[in-house]
Amino acid sequence: MDKILIIGGNAAGLTAASRAKRIDPRLDVTVIERLPHISYSTCGLPYLLARLVSAESLISYTPETFRKERGIAVHTEVRVESVIPSRKRAHGVRVDTGEAVEFPFDRLLIATGVKPKPPAIPGIDLANVFTLLNLQDALRIQEALAAAQQVAIIGAGYVGLEVAECLRSLGKSVHLFERERQVLSSVDPDMAQIVEYELRRFGVHVSTGANVLALVGQDGRVNGIKSASGLGITPAELVLLDTGVEPNGDLAKEAGVRIGLNGGISVDPHMETNLPGIYAAGNCVETHCAIRRRPVLSYIGTVAAKQGRIAGENMAARRTTFLGAIGTTVLKVFDLNVARTGLTTREAAAEKMPVISARIESDDRASYYPPKRKVGVKLIAERATRRLIGAQIVGYGEAAKRIDVAATAITCGMPIEDFAQLDLAYSPPYSSLWDPLLIAAQALKRGGPL
Amino acid sequence: MDKILIIGGNAAGLTAASRAKRIDPRLDVTVIERLPHISYSTCGLPYLLARLVSAESLISYTPETFRKERGIAVHTEVRVESVIPSRKRAHGVRVDTGEAVEFPFDRLLIATGVKPKPPAIPGIDLANVFTLLNLQDALRIQEALAAAQQVAIIGAGYVGLEVAECLRSLGKSVHLFERERQVLSSVDPDMAQIVEYELRRFGVHVSTGANVLALVGQDGRVNGIKSASGLGITPAELVLLDTGVEPNGDLAKEAGVRIGLNGGISVDPHMETNLPGIYAAGNCVETHCAIRRRPVLSYIGTVAAKQGRIAGENMAARRTTFLGAIGTTVLKVFDLNVARTGLTTREAAAEKMPVISARIESDDRASYYPPKRKVGVKLIAERATRRLIGAQIVGYGEAAKRIDVAATAITCGMPIEDFAQLDLAYSPPYSSLWDPLLIAAQALKRGGPL
Repeated sequence: MDKILIIGGNAAGLTAASRAKRIDPRLDVTVIERLPHISYSTCGLPYLLARLVSAESLISYTPETFRKERGIAVHTEVRVESVIPSRKRAHGVRVDTGEAVEFPFDRLLIATGVKPKPPAIPGIDLANVFTLLNLQDALRIQEALAAAQQVAIIGAGYVGLEVAECLRSLGKSVHLFERERQVLSSVDPDMAQIVEYELRRFGVHVSTGANVLALVGQDGRVNGIKSASGLGITPAELVLLDTGVEPNGDLAKEAGVRIGLNGGISVDPHMETNLPGIYAAGNCVETHCAIRRRPVLSYIGTVAAKQGRIAGENMAARRTTFLGAIGTTVLKVFDLNVARTGLTTREAAAEKMPVISARIESDDRASYYPPKRKVGVKLIAERATRRLIGAQIVGYGEAAKRIDVAATAITCGMPIEDFAQLDLAYSPPYSSLWDPLLIAAQALKRGGPL
Repeated sequence: MDKILIIGGNAAGLTAASRAKRIDPRLDVTVIERLPHISYSTCGLPYLLARLVSAESLISYTPETFRKERGIAVHTEVRVESVIPSRKRAHGVRVDTGEAVEFPFDRLLIATGVKPKPPAIPGIDLANVFTLLNLQDALRIQEALAAAQQVAIIGAGYVGLEVAECLRSLGKSVHLFERERQVLSSVDPDMAQIVEYELRRFGVHVSTGANVLALVGQDGRVNGIKSASGLGITPAELVLLDTGVEPNGDLAKEAGVRIGLNGGISVDPHMETNLPGIYAAGNCVETHCAIRRRPVLSYIGTVAAKQGRIAGENMAARRTTFLGAIGTTVLKVFDLNVARTGLTTREAAAEKMPVISARIESDDRASYYPPKRKVGVKLIAERATRRLIGAQIVGYGEAAKRIDVAATAITCGMPIEDFAQLDLAYSPPYSSLWDPLLIAAQALKRGGPL
């Protein structure tokens, strides 16, 4: 009875555990998690802060129900300190008691996720300065929010924007500081402008191109942000850092697992590392980008779950292959739907890939069927091959599934001429006779040599 | 200055006219329409009956605005009686005055749409028996509805179901008679059952497997339906026939244009018929099915508009190609979203194409983010190649854009193994970590040999 050991009890780790056990119920599967909770929706944490959902409803399984319903042992609050591949053992300590524990394995999965990359400025160790990476973070922020009216968010990425919306819904004053000259650097500046407009429309103070010099405080607790804008100190009783994360690969590296050039754990298409029998999956690994055809870093829950699934299948001796990802995401920013897939103009430039692009704005359904809503669509194609390589959709109309249509076309390497003729569904309650995607494709066709 | 003549003033005809004139503004473009209105949304007609929209708002252009804004002459209420290809002339009559008119052309487009196929039963000529093919039909039905409380609909296709919903919203009693053993024969019986349940839930009387023997009436006006079910006469003050249509190709045939085996006008990929300079587009032509790789009949507005666009480009001497269609449609039936693309199980069987299929039911978003709603997804793949060839989505959750994702994959000939790993967008307000499409693809993978 082979022993499968999994370090990390969230999307990648638990999906792998469940999948392996399902394929081969005789396997002895054990999951170790450093924190108190497993199996919760990390993407739902901002909505916990907004009091839209409870912590309980974010959790799918407790260690007990996971064991009972799936036959998988789970140890929480155990920190793995080292992995000895030659002895096929992992050593750790119980966080509460300090007791040393040891786990033997035949096959191991490292799914240790990410760690925050805080900015190198004074004051980030003050009380009421947080990152939001896990449920424990969220519960701590929730507690501190009770006595905080003025909140500063440093970094305007996915988490920063979602939390900005959620805290505005609680009536907090929110000031967003972003070092780049635009919010949400995962979309092009022209699309980011629409997002910035929406943030301002709902009363978020937005400072782009901001140079935050220090967090300042009193009695060990943050009370302001010092930035180079010359406006003195911006008051802030609570600060959220959304200044980036990096793969949490220390444990793997010390065990002799190869780390890639991007800093993630290097894996093959079966999610196996350079050490036979040791697998890795989720945000700690390098993910194959199906457009660039090389490994990149990806911090997306759906990708982590897919990689976990493939890792679980291969650990259970079913040979399957992870086909890669293309960076498809969607984000709600107040009333605005913001979605992107593939490469942005900037990302394509970084690959030295000449592109053509077009942006259109259109109603999302038949003009006479209320309520029609505006959507902006930007499409990007490789100039040489005319294949679609990127799409961004920002608007009050449907964006989340439209971006999936573009993602599917990009995955297939579809030329824009074919994309412009896609047979998409139409009926007045749902869409317009020419879907905004097709109108954008027609504009893109005109944009390049025919 | 070449003369372009277009017979038919709706989706295909007007799109072709606009496109040709846009590419080459020197062209002399004339449109002839048999009925009083042009440029209205045929798909919006049921919502006119429901009083959700006005006739005016369904109309994009009047003949006057079309002429003024686009420089295209439009003649309404002119019936073309013959086309003489050798003399490059069309002969017609003004419907109101009976005056003979003649139109010369260098290139001609036939976009004459469809004509109804009424059932061969007694009573269909009674007053208050209607079909719903054009705006004039809708206006007549609207007038008759004022004095009709009990309505019978014969045929449970798209129009029948949409009108059933719209008339229920006006408080009418609606009895739906369908000859087949299921409603909506464009989806598989298991999906149609869900639609039938929804119709009943909103008080529509549904009789499937119904054998309507006659329409009966008094003083020349319909007052009942006689069917073979043994229940006597079902009262009906108004009857809508949704018993099918066929291509309106008489004019083309008499001019020597080749008609295909399916009864539609035969065209090449540039929408040109066997007679050089004579084009055809829209519901009157045979449409290339990109899955079956042969011509079929299609009565879908988006396809007609695409064909019109391609015809217009080729008539303006820009060589472009229509890539075909795959039968993507979406339909609202009360609270239910009903979408399909590609081949159904029955259609695949008619092609003698062995398939595998899977059907799942899933929530459409994160379980904790209200309101989550159920969607049923059925995927069909060719057994031999494992390529996706069909999808059907029925549920209270999003279906219209999800079907577009499947349509894109089918167009690309994507194998189900690749489809199951599509990088689709996720965020709690929009979807679940594993989109129902991916869950269905996983089920389909299990369904066949790996």
